[in-house]
Amino acid sequence: MPLPMSVPHGPPGPAAVAVGSTAAAGATAAHVAARPPAYQPVTPALLDELRGIVGPAHVIAGDPEKLEAYSHDEIAEPEYARMPECVVRPGSAAEIAAIMKLANRERVPVTPRGAGSGLSGGAVPVHGGIVLLTDRLNKVLEFDRANLTITVEPGVITNEINPLVREAGLFFAGYPMSLESCSVGGNVAENAGGGKAVKYGVTGRYVTGLELVTPTGEIVTLGGKLSKDVTGYNLIQLMVGSEGTLGIFTKITLKLMPLPKASADLLVLFPSAESAIAAVPRIIAGGGILPTALEFMDRTSFMAACEYLNETLDYQQAGAMLLITVDGATATEVEAAYEAVGEQCLQGGALEVYVADNHTTSERVWKIRRNIAEAFKVRSPRQSLEDIVVPIAAIPAMVTGLLEIARKWDIEIPCYGHAGDGNLHATPVMNPAWTDAEWHDRLPRILEEIFTLTARLGGTLSGEHGIGHKRLAWMPLFCSPAHLEMMRAIKLALDPHLILNPGKIIPPPAA
Amino acid sequence: MPLPMSVPHGPPGPAAVAVGSTAAAGATAAHVAARPPAYQPVTPALLDELRGIVGPAHVIAGDPEKLEAYSHDEIAEPEYARMPECVVRPGSAAEIAAIMKLANRERVPVTPRGAGSGLSGGAVPVHGGIVLLTDRLNKVLEFDRANLTITVEPGVITNEINPLVREAGLFFAGYPMSLESCSVGGNVAENAGGGKAVKYGVTGRYVTGLELVTPTGEIVTLGGKLSKDVTGYNLIQLMVGSEGTLGIFTKITLKLMPLPKASADLLVLFPSAESAIAAVPRIIAGGGILPTALEFMDRTSFMAACEYLNETLDYQQAGAMLLITVDGATATEVEAAYEAVGEQCLQGGALEVYVADNHTTSERVWKIRRNIAEAFKVRSPRQSLEDIVVPIAAIPAMVTGLLEIARKWDIEIPCYGHAGDGNLHATPVMNPAWTDAEWHDRLPRILEEIFTLTARLGGTLSGEHGIGHKRLAWMPLFCSPAHLEMMRAIKLALDPHLILNPGKIIPPPAA
Repeated sequence: MPLPMSVPHGPPGPAAVAVGSTAAAGATAAHVAARPPAYQPVTPALLDELRGIVGPAHVIAGDPEKLEAYSHDEIAEPEYARMPECVVRPGSAAEIAAIMKLANRERVPVTPRGAGSGLSGGAVPVHGGIVLLTDRLNKVLEFDRANLTITVEPGVITNEINPLVREAGLFFAGYPMSLESCSVGGNVAENAGGGKAVKYGVTGRYVTGLELVTPTGEIVTLGGKLSKDVTGYNLIQLMVGSEGTLGIFTKITLKLMPLPKASADLLVLFPSAESAIAAVPRIIAGGGILPTALEFMDRTSFMAACEYLNETLDYQQAGAMLLITVDGATATEVEAAYEAVGEQCLQGGALEVYVADNHTTSERVWKIRRNIAEAFKVRSPRQSLEDIVVPIAAIPAMVTGLLEIARKWDIEIPCYGHAGDGNLHATPVMNPAWTDAEWHDRLPRILEEIFTLTARLGGTLSGEHGIGHKRLAWMPLFCSPAHLEMMRAIKLALDPHLILNPGKIIPPPAA
Repeated sequence: MPLPMSVPHGPPGPAAVAVGSTAAAGATAAHVAARPPAYQPVTPALLDELRGIVGPAHVIAGDPEKLEAYSHDEIAEPEYARMPECVVRPGSAAEIAAIMKLANRERVPVTPRGAGSGLSGGAVPVHGGIVLLTDRLNKVLEFDRANLTITVEPGVITNEINPLVREAGLFFAGYPMSLESCSVGGNVAENAGGGKAVKYGVTGRYVTGLELVTPTGEIVTLGGKLSKDVTGYNLIQLMVGSEGTLGIFTKITLKLMPLPKASADLLVLFPSAESAIAAVPRIIAGGGILPTALEFMDRTSFMAACEYLNETLDYQQAGAMLLITVDGATATEVEAAYEAVGEQCLQGGALEVYVADNHTTSERVWKIRRNIAEAFKVRSPRQSLEDIVVPIAAIPAMVTGLLEIARKWDIEIPCYGHAGDGNLHATPVMNPAWTDAEWHDRLPRILEEIFTLTARLGGTLSGEHGIGHKRLAWMPLFCSPAHLEMMRAIKLALDPHLILNPGKIIPPPAA
């Protein structure tokens, strides 16, 4: 992705965050660190020391074209990009520890980066400094069949795991939608979710062991091949989802699950969002079934996707859809499960239940879900992919509220996502008639309305994409000052010079 | 339980921990705080202020007989008891906040206490001061069927939840074995496990929202009725299992699961621990089944329990037993599951598979598991209930090692517990011929051998009972100095005067 020439780089100035300039509750987007420290530039002498640690071939510096690739993640909007001063590619935990000690001594920020597939700017070096790439730590260290675990380095691509363990009847259940490009280290850093989270939970549930380098450069091992562990504070789950601000993972042990031997998908058409969502507790409590996936699509979403795909399903009559997956140890079990689910949906007023129990039909129904974002990209060049979570029962109110906000601003806001866990990718899409300047002016106000409603419904800011610097300014809408202060205190306790990935997650104290 | 007159009480002296006086790796049992602060006694003036906050009827002071009940938990050994100076029973989060602010001002330690059913001394006031009882916060606040959650105050007895939610087809899956006496707040503080953890995980998996009072007296709300949440650091899971050292919970929101409609138990006899444990990955990976429970009993354990119960099963031929529960949405599913499990066990060399698919037979097989501790209490008045965790595949090596340690010291060490998650209640039982003095002299050395072996096998100190002050001295065997330093830094960051439940979890830095 070519970036405009105006991408900031070099020694840090104030890292202005584009959205949130009107943010509520005292956050000022111009500040991004708990206590903005005086960071130092990456000097030629420091580069020499870094080359001494990782080898000259593994330091990138002085070449803006090469560095540019490390200035952004998968967020589409270029205003979140920041140029690193250099990129280092360590080959071991010991090298990472040495880099961190050096960075602390020199007061140079370090931003860890996995595959760069994030969606909140977690891997973007907002204060410049060093980007620390984990791509050379890319080995599967051990598949332990007897203990049902796999231990990998952080740079392993998530999709490599399942082919390795499948023949043993196992799978890694924590993987996200982007499994073909993301790396395990990034999944753990973001606590990535995915399409199977209703039954299987998210990445963190499967992390039983971590080796990591602390912000001050110590190598620490937490947990192991252990399914249960209350030996001291749960630092593993503190590290999971900390977006590379509390430690750099160097080894990750994951628990594996029995591979389901059968599965089926149901596409269920409902007259309204209300009736669709009312079916969720019916399925779980009434049917006694915990589906693998329970995806929601509002009318705006599936209409766009179906039109984009020339889908011939009788979708026009529907007000909302659920896409439900069930899996199990036998085909009989799965059949009983989808019959129970279908029955509950029909009792709850479903218009139509389509069952897909083979690859071809499953592919057809999942295509609708997967192509929503694509469909809107065709309609408009600019959209802001959000990641809110609300209590399941609040989804209809959220959908209604989003329709009102969309109407008021004359835009579309498709709302789709993981209904089983209330995680909705509500995505304001720019009215194609607007200029970029109008979009940049209005988007923060649109987001403020969306997030204010989310908070009022008992929801939160992110379910799986993280905060990074993209959502920093909105944190005070969801976390009280005392809550933010706890995070700030923990960050400072573990990273006294705020060297590791500063400018993420925690906004500065209100002035 | 009457206590000897020698129970220490009043303003703190050094809290000597009986075991661990020979502890390895630099821990000195005489110190129990990160940086031992100068605590102050509870003065008459402070008592008046406390009475002003909670009402005079809710302060217990000056009556050693009444205070004694709050000097210990369910650990049998009296040497872990410490007398509080007073007990306060707040009725709200605001009252708890006021108490914490007062305690910080006066430098008086506060130890929160739920139902007192703990097994590591978590609720014992090792530095005297105030015991803060949560028993008046005992209301079920909301059962939300549409969101599949229940919100309770911490003093609710865990067993109250399931009868409330059962008719809606739901259950709380995180409960521990002691559910009839323990309270939800204590379960969360200890991250309590239980007999269904293989399939359902432990308490922490179900905690989606917490209201808590911080050590400095702020009221903070984390999460909510949210199944997914990556909005900032995972403070909920940091709080879960923090044993009342980082916060006092005042509201807890729990996620509920679909109530299984059928279940069955299998008692499987194996020739050896090795063959029993080898069946675990066979069942999960080969059978594709994640059992609800997968309990292990070594020969020492089940022989004692069967003799105690006059059990007529042909148990003498066995070297180890697995007790396996499967559950599901239909009887057919459960039947298929137990047939697959039985088949895998027989292929793995099982001598005999008994299936219990009704209440009477299920009760008979579970009785063996539940009566192991009782059977050994009859044999000897003193035993040290431990809670180690090892990788599943290391269980046979652990059992062999325990037999060697038992032989060397001329004692019995029954080993039983949750094989599916490697959590073993290895329990040294005093040789009845020994004097108490001999037991107290030898137990630390026996435990040191057990824990050294545990650590060598990649295991850890506690799976569900916690560290408290009982296991404090052994932490350096399992956690590196840098790991302990991280915990210490977090504790100090959130509790700068070390007021909340000091002397637990984190041993002092090596001198």
